[in-house]
Amino acid sequence: MATQRTAPTLADIQEARQRIQGIAEETPVYISETFSRRCGREVRLKAENLQRTGAFKVRGAVNKLATLSPEERAAGVVAASAGNHGQAVAWAARELGVRALIFVPDTAPMAKVEACRNYGAETEMSGEYFEDALTAALVHVEETGGTFIHPYEDQFVVAGQGTIGLELLEQEPEVATVLIPIGGGGLALGIATALRAVRPEVRIVGIQAGVDGYTIADGIAVKVPSDFTMPLLEDLLDDIISVTDEEISEAIVLLLERAKLVVEGAGAVGVAALLAGKAGGSGLAVPILSGGNIDPTMLISVMRHGLTVAGRYLVVRTQLADRPGELIKFLSLVAAERGNVISVEHHREGMDIPVSETEVELTLVTRDEAHCLQLLAAMGEHGYTVERLR
Amino acid sequence: MATQRTAPTLADIQEARQRIQGIAEETPVYISETFSRRCGREVRLKAENLQRTGAFKVRGAVNKLATLSPEERAAGVVAASAGNHGQAVAWAARELGVRALIFVPDTAPMAKVEACRNYGAETEMSGEYFEDALTAALVHVEETGGTFIHPYEDQFVVAGQGTIGLELLEQEPEVATVLIPIGGGGLALGIATALRAVRPEVRIVGIQAGVDGYTIADGIAVKVPSDFTMPLLEDLLDDIISVTDEEISEAIVLLLERAKLVVEGAGAVGVAALLAGKAGGSGLAVPILSGGNIDPTMLISVMRHGLTVAGRYLVVRTQLADRPGELIKFLSLVAAERGNVISVEHHREGMDIPVSETEVELTLVTRDEAHCLQLLAAMGEHGYTVERLR
Repeated sequence: MATQRTAPTLADIQEARQRIQGIAEETPVYISETFSRRCGREVRLKAENLQRTGAFKVRGAVNKLATLSPEERAAGVVAASAGNHGQAVAWAARELGVRALIFVPDTAPMAKVEACRNYGAETEMSGEYFEDALTAALVHVEETGGTFIHPYEDQFVVAGQGTIGLELLEQEPEVATVLIPIGGGGLALGIATALRAVRPEVRIVGIQAGVDGYTIADGIAVKVPSDFTMPLLEDLLDDIISVTDEEISEAIVLLLERAKLVVEGAGAVGVAALLAGKAGGSGLAVPILSGGNIDPTMLISVMRHGLTVAGRYLVVRTQLADRPGELIKFLSLVAAERGNVISVEHHREGMDIPVSETEVELTLVTRDEAHCLQLLAAMGEHGYTVERLR
Repeated sequence: MATQRTAPTLADIQEARQRIQGIAEETPVYISETFSRRCGREVRLKAENLQRTGAFKVRGAVNKLATLSPEERAAGVVAASAGNHGQAVAWAARELGVRALIFVPDTAPMAKVEACRNYGAETEMSGEYFEDALTAALVHVEETGGTFIHPYEDQFVVAGQGTIGLELLEQEPEVATVLIPIGGGGLALGIATALRAVRPEVRIVGIQAGVDGYTIADGIAVKVPSDFTMPLLEDLLDDIISVTDEEISEAIVLLLERAKLVVEGAGAVGVAALLAGKAGGSGLAVPILSGGNIDPTMLISVMRHGLTVAGRYLVVRTQLADRPGELIKFLSLVAAERGNVISVEHHREGMDIPVSETEVELTLVTRDEAHCLQLLAAMGEHGYTVERLR
């Protein structure tokens, strides 16, 4: 069975829903007071990051694999992906008792490759770039058979993703605006097809990231737009907008701190658009949090950046007289103003430091920007000349 | 109406469920393949961290406030808490149209005080310690009226928390072991009462933290065990165990990375106990993830620590010949082995460094401990003498 480059109908999506039931999860909708207040309209979050394997992709993969003939199942499935699609195909194949072979570039993060293996798939490293893995997968299918599972240029895959739309309409019948990330476009095409068929008046906004290059929303960083999904999306969607990495970072931190949800960059673009006032429309807005697979070291960087922007870190440098007790005096002042010290660097040598003085660099955890300013003012009042580094 | 130091019955908990319906959320159960594999038994997570205000406490607060007479409502409610209980009372009071006054020590994190205010409560700072705020709250009630809401020594509060037990039995009828954090003991008492009444054979384990001092599970760090809840718990529970901060940290990181859920220390103790093999019993185990209100700077520390333990960071120091190109040669070797450099520190001066050499300290993101060893071996093979710092 070749890949079906046809748009699914509502009936296809309803059938998909039957097929994935009891395999993929029905994900919860999270009511968010903070997001509603910040965005000036009611916001509820479709927590698809809590889906099996941590992303929506299992819906499409399960639906696709469930439509294979017994012969096709016996021959196994093949995919090229180092990310959510690869893991979804691996997981769906195991659930349905099908062999899966996933081609990944050998630059892929080991954690993702291991996730595919843990779900029971074989993996094959080939070439440095994604395109190399894709070529190898297609050659393998050509030479040895098996069904290649495309991540979005496939009617059954798209119909699977569309089940989110039907689910959402049952969970939130009052929804007025839906925000959907666009990478390859399969998620947006599936959901928009379902929504337009059942509730044509709902405002549907597609969101892109990294249109001019690198983005932390790596899950939707697609170099070439699909000539299958994009023309269809242009018809179905009310608007296609883009968000910046700065906006995405802020959304990730807020989701973590207030909704208690870990959301990857691609999954946070809807919240980013709402916070930035880019979503348009009115009434209840629901961003689709499409996945939660963010590298933890990346998450730490994003959090640190977010906290610094929010005034939750303060880094200052000052000079103290080189006498016993001077550092303690300075730290006592900081403590009195409730600054929480994380690190103290003490420099006794350096071109700009007079012999009788030492230089101190202090990193503090603060409450907010107002607290930073209050600390700086107190230092000034006590005669310290302070340079703010961050 | 004074505080009711009586254990609730199943009927009380069923009534509580009626009262909180449509106000507090029915929280989802998350199916966790990774946790099941790691713990060697089926594990599902009761995601009470996704409850309104981020913790279970709203169940008890809503139930308590809903039982007040019109006169009591008019006089308002008072609580002493800088944490989840204070926020829950503030939130429940606003939902039910009651005035709330929350006493907090003036050392309380500003973020928590502001959360109470955002929910519409008045706050009053009084004294340095929690006990000071408690005393001030009781004096205020004595002098000016209003109902003091105790966080756990109250039949209606405990009955509210018990609704989690009824909900869980409907969501997971096959549950064999339930793990519940014990701080004041109200959560464990409520849930255990419900479970024992409906499914007496379920194994119920209470979990404490910080029994010998400081704990990152600050939500359950209670200095003096309650003489109301503890004797009842000793009767109802099959076991009371304790976990270490190291075990809790590992659980927090795993919940974040694999379940995409932000869980505070107190909320992670059940998972910690399972991972450490301390839970006992067999069959489906469900830890109650009681809350998600962890300070983000604390979360970053826990994550960094967790990643270091898991071999996801490597810090090495070595000496290079002080010639152009030597640093590039060393970094190329690291790149070839797929180490991801986060920082390079270059020291040209120092007592132990020969004049013809410079010292380099490298911090790398690695895949796992095996990857660390592989990097160290490659450095050794190429003639570098390397000291591993972390």
